[in-house]
Amino acid sequence: MSSLISGSEIAQHDNRDSCWIIVHSKVYDVTEFLDEHPGGSKIILKYAGKDATEAYEPIHPPDAITTNLPIEKHIGAVDPNTVAKVVKEVTEEDKRREALMAARPPLDEILNLHDFEAIAKQLLTPKAWAYYSSASDDEITIRENRAAFQRVWFRPRVLRDVTNVDWSTTILGQKSSLPVYISATALGKLGHPDGEINLTRAAGKHGVIQMIPTLASCSFDEIVDAAIPGQPLFLQLYVNRDREITKRYVQHAEKRGVKGLFITVDAPQLGRREKDMRMKFVDDGAGAKVQEGQKDVQKDQGVARAISSFIDPSLSWKDIAWFKSITTMPIILKGVATPEDALLAYDSGVQGIVLSNHGGRQLDTSRSGLENLIDIVAALKSRGPWPNPNFSIFVDGGVRRASDALKALALGASAVGIGRGFLYSFSSYGQEGVERAIQILRDEFEMNMRLLGARNLSELVPEMVDASALRAHVGVTPPDNLYEQTYQSLKTADFKNKL
Amino acid sequence: MSSLISGSEIAQHDNRDSCWIIVHSKVYDVTEFLDEHPGGSKIILKYAGKDATEAYEPIHPPDAITTNLPIEKHIGAVDPNTVAKVVKEVTEEDKRREALMAARPPLDEILNLHDFEAIAKQLLTPKAWAYYSSASDDEITIRENRAAFQRVWFRPRVLRDVTNVDWSTTILGQKSSLPVYISATALGKLGHPDGEINLTRAAGKHGVIQMIPTLASCSFDEIVDAAIPGQPLFLQLYVNRDREITKRYVQHAEKRGVKGLFITVDAPQLGRREKDMRMKFVDDGAGAKVQEGQKDVQKDQGVARAISSFIDPSLSWKDIAWFKSITTMPIILKGVATPEDALLAYDSGVQGIVLSNHGGRQLDTSRSGLENLIDIVAALKSRGPWPNPNFSIFVDGGVRRASDALKALALGASAVGIGRGFLYSFSSYGQEGVERAIQILRDEFEMNMRLLGARNLSELVPEMVDASALRAHVGVTPPDNLYEQTYQSLKTADFKNKL
Amino acid sequence: MSSLISGSEIAQHDNRDSCWIIVHSKVYDVTEFLDEHPGGSKIILKYAGKDATEAYEPIHPPDAITTNLPIEKHIGAVDPNTVAKVVKEVTEEDKRREALMAARPPLDEILNLHDFEAIAKQLLTPKAWAYYSSASDDEITIRENRAAFQRVWFRPRVLRDVTNVDWSTTILGQKSSLPVYISATALGKLGHPDGEINLTRAAGKHGVIQMIPTLASCSFDEIVDAAIPGQPLFLQLYVNRDREITKRYVQHAEKRGVKGLFITVDAPQLGRREKDMRMKFVDDGAGAKVQEGQKDVQKDQGVARAISSFIDPSLSWKDIAWFKSITTMPIILKGVATPEDALLAYDSGVQGIVLSNHGGRQLDTSRSGLENLIDIVAALKSRGPWPNPNFSIFVDGGVRRASDALKALALGASAVGIGRGFLYSFSSYGQEGVERAIQILRDEFEMNMRLLGARNLSELVPEMVDASALRAHVGVTPPDNLYEQTYQSLKTADFKNKL
Amino acid sequence: MSSLISGSEIAQHDNRDSCWIIVHSKVYDVTEFLDEHPGGSKIILKYAGKDATEAYEPIHPPDAITTNLPIEKHIGAVDPNTVAKVVKEVTEEDKRREALMAARPPLDEILNLHDFEAIAKQLLTPKAWAYYSSASDDEITIRENRAAFQRVWFRPRVLRDVTNVDWSTTILGQKSSLPVYISATALGKLGHPDGEINLTRAAGKHGVIQMIPTLASCSFDEIVDAAIPGQPLFLQLYVNRDREITKRYVQHAEKRGVKGLFITVDAPQLGRREKDMRMKFVDDGAGAKVQEGQKDVQKDQGVARAISSFIDPSLSWKDIAWFKSITTMPIILKGVATPEDALLAYDSGVQGIVLSNHGGRQLDTSRSGLENLIDIVAALKSRGPWPNPNFSIFVDGGVRRASDALKALALGASAVGIGRGFLYSFSSYGQEGVERAIQILRDEFEMNMRLLGARNLSELVPEMVDASALRAHVGVTPPDNLYEQTYQSLKTADFKNKL
Repeated sequence: MSSLISGSEIAQHDNRDSCWIIVHSKVYDVTEFLDEHPGGSKIILKYAGKDATEAYEPIHPPDAITTNLPIEKHIGAVDPNTVAKVVKEVTEEDKRREALMAARPPLDEILNLHDFEAIAKQLLTPKAWAYYSSASDDEITIRENRAAFQRVWFRPRVLRDVTNVDWSTTILGQKSSLPVYISATALGKLGHPDGEINLTRAAGKHGVIQMIPTLASCSFDEIVDAAIPGQPLFLQLYVNRDREITKRYVQHAEKRGVKGLFITVDAPQLGRREKDMRMKFVDDGAGAKVQEGQKDVQKDQGVARAISSFIDPSLSWKDIAWFKSITTMPIILKGVATPEDALLAYDSGVQGIVLSNHGGRQLDTSRSGLENLIDIVAALKSRGPWPNPNFSIFVDGGVRRASDALKALALGASAVGIGRGFLYSFSSYGQEGVERAIQILRDEFEMNMRLLGARNLSELVPEMVDASALRAHVGVTPPDNLYEQTYQSLKTADFKNKL
Repeated sequence: MSSLISGSEIAQHDNRDSCWIIVHSKVYDVTEFLDEHPGGSKIILKYAGKDATEAYEPIHPPDAITTNLPIEKHIGAVDPNTVAKVVKEVTEEDKRREALMAARPPLDEILNLHDFEAIAKQLLTPKAWAYYSSASDDEITIRENRAAFQRVWFRPRVLRDVTNVDWSTTILGQKSSLPVYISATALGKLGHPDGEINLTRAAGKHGVIQMIPTLASCSFDEIVDAAIPGQPLFLQLYVNRDREITKRYVQHAEKRGVKGLFITVDAPQLGRREKDMRMKFVDDGAGAKVQEGQKDVQKDQGVARAISSFIDPSLSWKDIAWFKSITTMPIILKGVATPEDALLAYDSGVQGIVLSNHGGRQLDTSRSGLENLIDIVAALKSRGPWPNPNFSIFVDGGVRRASDALKALALGASAVGIGRGFLYSFSSYGQEGVERAIQILRDEFEMNMRLLGARNLSELVPEMVDASALRAHVGVTPPDNLYEQTYQSLKTADFKNKL
Repeated sequence: MSSLISGSEIAQHDNRDSCWIIVHSKVYDVTEFLDEHPGGSKIILKYAGKDATEAYEPIHPPDAITTNLPIEKHIGAVDPNTVAKVVKEVTEEDKRREALMAARPPLDEILNLHDFEAIAKQLLTPKAWAYYSSASDDEITIRENRAAFQRVWFRPRVLRDVTNVDWSTTILGQKSSLPVYISATALGKLGHPDGEINLTRAAGKHGVIQMIPTLASCSFDEIVDAAIPGQPLFLQLYVNRDREITKRYVQHAEKRGVKGLFITVDAPQLGRREKDMRMKFVDDGAGAKVQEGQKDVQKDQGVARAISSFIDPSLSWKDIAWFKSITTMPIILKGVATPEDALLAYDSGVQGIVLSNHGGRQLDTSRSGLENLIDIVAALKSRGPWPNPNFSIFVDGGVRRASDALKALALGASAVGIGRGFLYSFSSYGQEGVERAIQILRDEFEMNMRLLGARNLSELVPEMVDASALRAHVGVTPPDNLYEQTYQSLKTADFKNKL
Repeated sequence: MSSLISGSEIAQHDNRDSCWIIVHSKVYDVTEFLDEHPGGSKIILKYAGKDATEAYEPIHPPDAITTNLPIEKHIGAVDPNTVAKVVKEVTEEDKRREALMAARPPLDEILNLHDFEAIAKQLLTPKAWAYYSSASDDEITIRENRAAFQRVWFRPRVLRDVTNVDWSTTILGQKSSLPVYISATALGKLGHPDGEINLTRAAGKHGVIQMIPTLASCSFDEIVDAAIPGQPLFLQLYVNRDREITKRYVQHAEKRGVKGLFITVDAPQLGRREKDMRMKFVDDGAGAKVQEGQKDVQKDQGVARAISSFIDPSLSWKDIAWFKSITTMPIILKGVATPEDALLAYDSGVQGIVLSNHGGRQLDTSRSGLENLIDIVAALKSRGPWPNPNFSIFVDGGVRRASDALKALALGASAVGIGRGFLYSFSSYGQEGVERAIQILRDEFEMNMRLLGARNLSELVPEMVDASALRAHVGVTPPDNLYEQTYQSLKTADFKNKL
């Protein structure tokens, strides 16, 4: 099998009965895999007997096919001279995006994290935008996450010498130049060809900690390899139905130097994200398989569910002991939402929790992490002195400004996670975008801490915020439309002859 | 009178002094009925001496004319060879709708119950849409019904083994595959030629319970006949001024196997629904007579009031004993809104109550059933252990998602009713639409229960929701329009040369 | 001076030094009055030597000129043959309005009081609309008046025999077919040539009580003359700086049978109504003088202030005894807003108070009468048993529906006043409009009382409403515009090829 | 060096190695200053060898260049005959603004302070508008400042003799015709060629007190010289890193008769104002240097940060004693936001505090001064009888109406500051605009005090306002977009054939 295989031979296996495809110049027999492909067989058959690399690339880690396909189905290397070069058709949409790339504002005109999102929203393919931006059901929680920060107001102190302010910290024993870590988000190559590695490189350069996602587009090792020596990394874990796979994955991560294991506990099943699901109907080829043990899923569920069927819904508190037995990394439970579970987590001996609702992508109308923080800090005080150096609380969801982070920290969080904010920064500008995002946050931390009168993070105290309105997510009386139609608004004075 | 009647003979009775019409190939003398017709005489006279079937069909049950007209006015069968085929004029509106029918998205692109409503809104005749969608006065309650669910937030539990989740239940002793029943809505044929039977068939297939409306377009027996053996059905009852009619109707229902009697108590008079009333002015022919005992009504009151004048405004607590004497079906009072009345209901010996405001169609600015639920559960606890297996509370109004149902159930409801959601599903896609709606709810129940950490309905506890904002239906300060005109919103960065 | 005066003689007095004008075929020498005219001299000089009737008519009562001008300035009658008929120029605006008049929807298509406002808004001259619709400053209170009703929710009772419902009542000892009176609004002829008499006639026909405004366009006697025998009328009073004028006015009213004196106490100075003031700049001829004792005012203050300078800002609690000495009519203080003043009113021996903020036309960001009602009823209970047959509380401001009235009544009001609602009904349809408005309210009372389970007004109890949100006029967090720009709303499913 | 320098000689110094510029007919060698210029070297080099007066003028006080440049760099006077007259290019934008100037509504059509803002918004250069109107981050606090006033409602008293009402007061011992002072705002010449002097003249004429800004476009002495004898002035102070500069400045002010020293304590660093920053990218020439001791700053930070790098972030409570040692003027701390700091201020022996968030330009999501007022007045009562004649509280931010001021005064403030309101009044109409603004406020004070029943400021008591909703800056539930798309609003009746 070490001899090169000719294009004409491959081309004969162009049907359901015998289906070969080329990926990265290697030929694979996927005939028996067709019905197992989470993205459906249709999209594979489109490339039967042909080179599928271009379609494969953005939504699979490089090793997805080799890991999932038995070795005997790895047919061999392609004879490059015999395969017609795939001429990528340049669509109107491609041209539109290329023109937009050229017209991006220079990075120094990007003033805040919203700006990256505004650029990415237009630059991304509709499918990528739908996958990244979507949340579950009516997308109420995703918006509430943002709104919650604005129900907490500052009570700044004045006349403190704020010449020097320091916002660096330690997260799970690792130094961080910001009280912010890069939270895990999936499928980075949908946004940029270098995928998650954009984050790794920027994080290494600026002393920020990245959490590697289980569902990364880049392989775990590619990401770790992109880190500089000593650069701390965390790992986000979806637990596989097959615990052996999980064990291998976790222990490999520890061996490669990962410093914290964030087990996702709010996703026994991935949420129904309707923007993402609607996208399926305009592009039937979506889907990826990144883990073994995945079961077949409905074909109309969007990217999110296509890639997640391996996740084990039976994960429970009983499993914590097992995790502690397979790793010495600090274990953090990501997705805790109640004081009840926070106490269970504490009592189970893990090192912390992330108050998260998965960026609004799981249970809609879940409360924000920020709101839960208040109840949970109060509950944990029942377990002894607080803050507790052995138990950390993190918050993610809706963070866009340093001021958001400062509010969470004042209320008891150790650090906050930012997911989409960084995702959009590399989707629009690659690694440089991520670096600019970090710089913006740094500027904001400097300014806001000075204006708050807090010279370092330990001076951020609950008294610096007024969170009394945080729980007031009230509903508005439905408007009286008839009255509003007949009421004529006031107008200001205006120029006589408008130009 | 058994010989066939010729079209030319019929055609002579084409005026107010002698008015015959053809319905379903039978001839009727409606001369004396003209002034009693709730929809007015004008619409009948339009068909004097002609075939009125097409106009009659969508808003009358088939037996309306035979039940209401004395037997001696049933002239006989038409000689089909002598009657000119009524050539239905195809209007621009008909063409528009036909084109829309063809352009409906495939059912698997319908992702939630709102989608059915969006399709039906465009597909229905303006009159049908007005009748179905309208609510009373300023339509504040109809919107509040929906808004109330979003003031209740989830407190999900994690790390429970949710491999298997079960949302089936028992409603009034009948098995139901969902904690949801199909609530009664009137005049189904305005939405689809098969009317309420669409619901019956889908309900039978998927183990869901349908509540048959008094004001159905299909006759009661047609609906029951469409059920499969053993399929449980409930009956919604408007009580007639003539109690004998009501008695016959209830006892007939019980004989046909109906398993629960839902007596509407919030409609001594049908509400003023202005969207519906405005429609009268563009189509003066509306009106239907579905029950005897109906009095004449103002002709400009829309469909709702035209069909409801038989309802008895004198219905009172004293009547409950009588109902108990005429039926052994469980009796449920539909439309209770206060703890005071909930206690009266309990003490009267009925089997339950529906917390409903009639879909916002009766008393506007009534509170939502969900809000009333909290007070009422608290009050009922004064009568003994709760939950009480002999007394059920149901909630309807504004339910669009499984998550809505789960909130009501967590707060003490046994099940929720969905009316418009199913109505729009068959209005847009017939029986298949209803089946798709049930499937969507099922998917949502599975996902949300897993994400909540509740494996069956008994694990849905009040602690899983935060209802603290439910009563906060506050009003917003009227905006300062002058300030808002002068305030210039922030803008994000943008591309240099927008394409 | 009894001989007829020729047009040519009049025409010579066409300047500031000698200025005669014709009004209703009589000639007046207004030379010395020019600078006293509240609307400014300019508008009079426009008609110097000519017939001013057409401009005079809509904003002055017929007797304004005769009352204000010394008898020696009444020159005499015009010789009709010598005066050129004033040919009214028909403007584009006139034509627009005439076409609109013809295109008005028939009255039975008017379904609620908002409809009249919608029609009047387009039909009225811009100046009349500005005067009627305007309120003070940022017009926050006018909108809050409406919003307040929607923060009170119903708690309806069911299963009461509501065959017969009765919403008639007694107001200050006078029978009223509705718990609603027609509140005083000024300058009715701006809206309709018959002015306030439209109200009088409709009120007489339907058993409703009208409150005659001091600033009516029709004279007091014209209005009283239009009443049927025994028709009860109230009088609204602006107190003149010259108390003798007020005394004559009040005693004349009592002699003519007026049954209640409503003294306005919230208007020591009329509010700045900016819509009205802006109108001054497009029409410099506004102004009217309806009372003696008026001082000169700034010319740019709109109609409201032009006609009100006679009002006495020194009016105080000390004056109440005097009023009691000059009349035996019940005295009601209109415009009370605090429990403190309600107690002072009670202790002063008057018969009642109107909780009013003058339709939002006086102090902006004053609270609504409905909100004040709760505090004031609570305070009055300290003075003895409540309700007190000798002391009535009325509420006005923002009432558009019977349901609004029912909320106020449930909370302790004896009746509510409707001003603009009736004003717009005759502005758009004359007397018939007012009758239709009364009929609509009657229908709404019937329906809502049935649905509430209240058979008469004494059954309207506080427990029937939930006013817990009434005080919650909260402010909304200013929106995060950047986030909202980048958040992309969900969309429903849609037809494939939209027509 | 006293001989005149020819244009041709100057023109040779047109580059980075030797750069001379002309300002106000004097030549300066700015070669060594190029890299120190806060606005960057680029903008200076544009005028190398040429006359820079026109660009210099609007954003520098006249003495900025002479103060900042060592005397040996003052080359001498220009020979006017040898310099080509700079012909100012008239741009389209200039023409647009000129036409707008001519089309401004006459001043008597300006009815409120919003009107000035509406006119200025269109009249100002985009850069000036961005600098004036911008606030920090998401601009939430700037809007909250305004919104807070509308959460306080009036409880007006009636039947008090309000013939005479008096709103004059004493501020820090100085008479003021209004309980309002003109708060400091920077760079007045961006808005009008006469800059801050417009304020000084109008203030002198109408008995109002102006607070002179450190960052004025006019020099301190120009402003003081424009005052009439005895006209009280206050001084706003940014404290320089070089305390000697500050000492000279303060003592000079005291010598010139300034009556109060307002030390800004909420600006150790100027906020990130993104509207202002975005403007930098369209005009790279911004920047000004008004104080010595300024360090270099990032060049992309907008006008605000360019002009403020001299401000000392080390300023602290320890410095208060020093200020008391260098001046006998009353010292007021501007920018206090918490009871904790209010008590520190009181205990430090200063004469008062301004509850301010710097017009929303510093720490975003800081609470409004009005909200802080309530907590702070409560706290100060712990220090002895209140009000305290030796300690004043002022409030600024969002004041647009006399009613706003009255609310703050009722709650305990001595006076309020208005910044932007006056800034926009002279930006649109020069000195006359300021006078009109004062007149409008006077009219509003008269009306509102009458309507409140307060004859003088001591009668303004807390009971006259309902501030219960002030702390309720709640967040709204994110809307259910799908529901709102499908819900069809009610419509009013309408004309049959709309014209």
